[in-house]
Amino acid sequence: PRSFRIVVLPGDGIGPEVVAQAVRVLEAVSAVSSDFQLKLESHDFGGCAIDAHGEPLPQSTLQACKDADAILMGSIGGPKWGVDAKVRPEPGLLALRKALGLYANIRPANLASDSLLDYSPLRPEVAKGVDIIVVRELIGGAYFGTRKEQGVAPDVDTAWDTMIYSVEEVQRITRVAAQIAVAANPPLEIHSVDKANVLASSRLWRKVVTETLTKEYPQIKFHHQLVDSAAMFITSNPRKLNGIILTENLFGDILSDQTSVIPGSLGLLPSASLAGAPSTPSADFKPTLGIYEPIHGSAPDIAGQGIANPIGTILSAAMLLRYSLGLEKPAKAIEDAVRRVLDTPELGGSGLRTADLGGKVATVELGDRIVEAL
Amino acid sequence: PRSFRIVVLPGDGIGPEVVAQAVRVLEAVSAVSSDFQLKLESHDFGGCAIDAHGEPLPQSTLQACKDADAILMGSIGGPKWGVDAKVRPEPGLLALRKALGLYANIRPANLASDSLLDYSPLRPEVAKGVDIIVVRELIGGAYFGTRKEQGVAPDVDTAWDTMIYSVEEVQRITRVAAQIAVAANPPLEIHSVDKANVLASSRLWRKVVTETLTKEYPQIKFHHQLVDSAAMFITSNPRKLNGIILTENLFGDILSDQTSVIPGSLGLLPSASLAGAPSTPSADFKPTLGIYEPIHGSAPDIAGQGIANPIGTILSAAMLLRYSLGLEKPAKAIEDAVRRVLDTPELGGSGLRTADLGGKVATVELGDRIVEAL
Ligand SMILES: CC(C)[C@H](C(=O)O)[C@@H](O)C(=O)O
Ligand SMILES: CC(C)[C@H](C(=O)O)[C@@H](O)C(=O)O
Repeated sequence: PRSFRIVVLPGDGIGPEVVAQAVRVLEAVSAVSSDFQLKLESHDFGGCAIDAHGEPLPQSTLQACKDADAILMGSIGGPKWGVDAKVRPEPGLLALRKALGLYANIRPANLASDSLLDYSPLRPEVAKGVDIIVVRELIGGAYFGTRKEQGVAPDVDTAWDTMIYSVEEVQRITRVAAQIAVAANPPLEIHSVDKANVLASSRLWRKVVTETLTKEYPQIKFHHQLVDSAAMFITSNPRKLNGIILTENLFGDILSDQTSVIPGSLGLLPSASLAGAPSTPSADFKPTLGIYEPIHGSAPDIAGQGIANPIGTILSAAMLLRYSLGLEKPAKAIEDAVRRVLDTPELGGSGLRTADLGGKVATVELGDRIVEAL
Repeated sequence: PRSFRIVVLPGDGIGPEVVAQAVRVLEAVSAVSSDFQLKLESHDFGGCAIDAHGEPLPQSTLQACKDADAILMGSIGGPKWGVDAKVRPEPGLLALRKALGLYANIRPANLASDSLLDYSPLRPEVAKGVDIIVVRELIGGAYFGTRKEQGVAPDVDTAWDTMIYSVEEVQRITRVAAQIAVAANPPLEIHSVDKANVLASSRLWRKVVTETLTKEYPQIKFHHQLVDSAAMFITSNPRKLNGIILTENLFGDILSDQTSVIPGSLGLLPSASLAGAPSTPSADFKPTLGIYEPIHGSAPDIAGQGIANPIGTILSAAMLLRYSLGLEKPAKAIEDAVRRVLDTPELGGSGLRTADLGGKVATVELGDRIVEAL
């Protein structure tokens, strides 16, 4: 059987608790398959790495990630390493993304089950049928542009960040969105989001997205949307943006968080950060390194209580199998198992919910049920 | 009586229709007062100015605005002058804001009436009681930072914008938020929004906001919120941000549009863009130049049909009286009249709604009723 090396970064807060359930699920699918086997190894990253090694991204962790086929991650950070702390986890995360070249952040937001409609802050008729994948450029823009901090000299009283994009950076993220779009049948529509009526970087963005899609993917429908209008529609009429929202780093940070509250609980949603465009199912699979993690944070307030929702991390493990290992079948099996557990009264039905969805079931028990349902 | 010079910029699309109703309301309140009189004059601005003069902001319009006590504006733009047009309206708007030094954009979002709860995309229990004023810095940040467009030379393949803030720019917008906060009793809470875990400009923002509020307004409660979390809360639990959201230009553009869909119709919401901090009611009034406009766009699809909602523009006129002329009483009278018209069945009650709120009443008729209710 093919063997894959999976690096696990349990992270901080509830990270280790939810990651443990995703690891069980991965072990379960690999146990029943003679096609592949997974070698899992854990490394310190984030706040726990600051505590143990004095830095969020130790060299040994970085090296292990570079050598891995894929990385499964829990959220990092917490009040202990807040904005005012001397060493913070976030620069470690940005450095890891950059070092691995993870330019494509993929965040699907859809209702895993209609039975969850009641947990959306939106009216059921507004939330129903929302199915949006945010494709966010992850290692460009203002996050990495040259910057200058306010210095100690009293005359230095400005600070700036440069929102900068090159043609090539826009092209490659556009191709990621396009590959995901054409994997669906019919292809998904692409909504490219920018602020081209004001920003030079957005005008370049709009031009390159148009050229790339028109030339290389004529079968894909796309249109451009200003970021402020997009922020309106995501709340007022999100189905209008069904398909793919393609956008730059900072806009994607904001809009993907806004979108993620629609399905009712952050605890349900997975994400992938990829170093390349995913293969279309019909083509030969080309492996792509990626970090897979739930979109929720490390939730220090409920850490250690065993009540966190592991589903976002478990669905992230499914994305790992699909995008980095090319194992569509077990990926689909995990997604189906999650949906069955959320939908079937025999399996606990609406009783089988963690606290974020009004239920009382423990993290481990929900993991048990999903493993059973596989 | 004191005499004030009001410049009216009717703008494009539905602009002239809704502005006409606000002008009637202004004329009505000045007719019944022996304290003040208003001299109104109209000028071309935006798309209509491009058509008539070849540029969105003719010199004569700019000069009239500089000489005015306040400016009432309709929305500008439309498909005729879209992103690909040679001359576009937006640069005229940015130039006007900059030339007049309008650094403070104020956008209140609250439910004018509980009878409108049904029009919110949020569940009634989520939307109820939301009362947020967005205070957005308007002439700094990436909107005005040095930029370079992609040139014709094939080797120029990047484009950038500079998100830049100086200490002084952050101080003055913080003071605007603070002045609005202390005008309420008890003072409103300030939620300062930034991305200080990533951006240098945000770290300066956070530092200066903290220093300014702590030193100058110790009575105000404030806290810092990352922009991505703010985007989550505005949809999932907006009351958490009741009070003032204080933020920089680009974040404010996005978040104020997101917030504005909560009260059910964009057509209801006013805005002010000020060249200084508003006076507190208890202190001597210091006049501040400002542009007052509804937050909705020029809605070319319904222009000319006489069905647009004039309330956002009428409430903008109330803000004009309050902030630029120091006329609190007629400002309050207008706001009360609008609320009465929206609330009282005798006056039409839920029947008295424009199309955006599911009604059939015409723009002019709603204007009539508000003038009567004064
Ligand atoms: C923690 C932070 C640096 C990060 C980001 O802004 O990218 C986070 O918000 C995310 O979206 O993954
Ligand atoms: C038209 C555009 C330039 C403008 C802005 O981005 O400031 C608008 O969206 C607004 O919010 O007033």
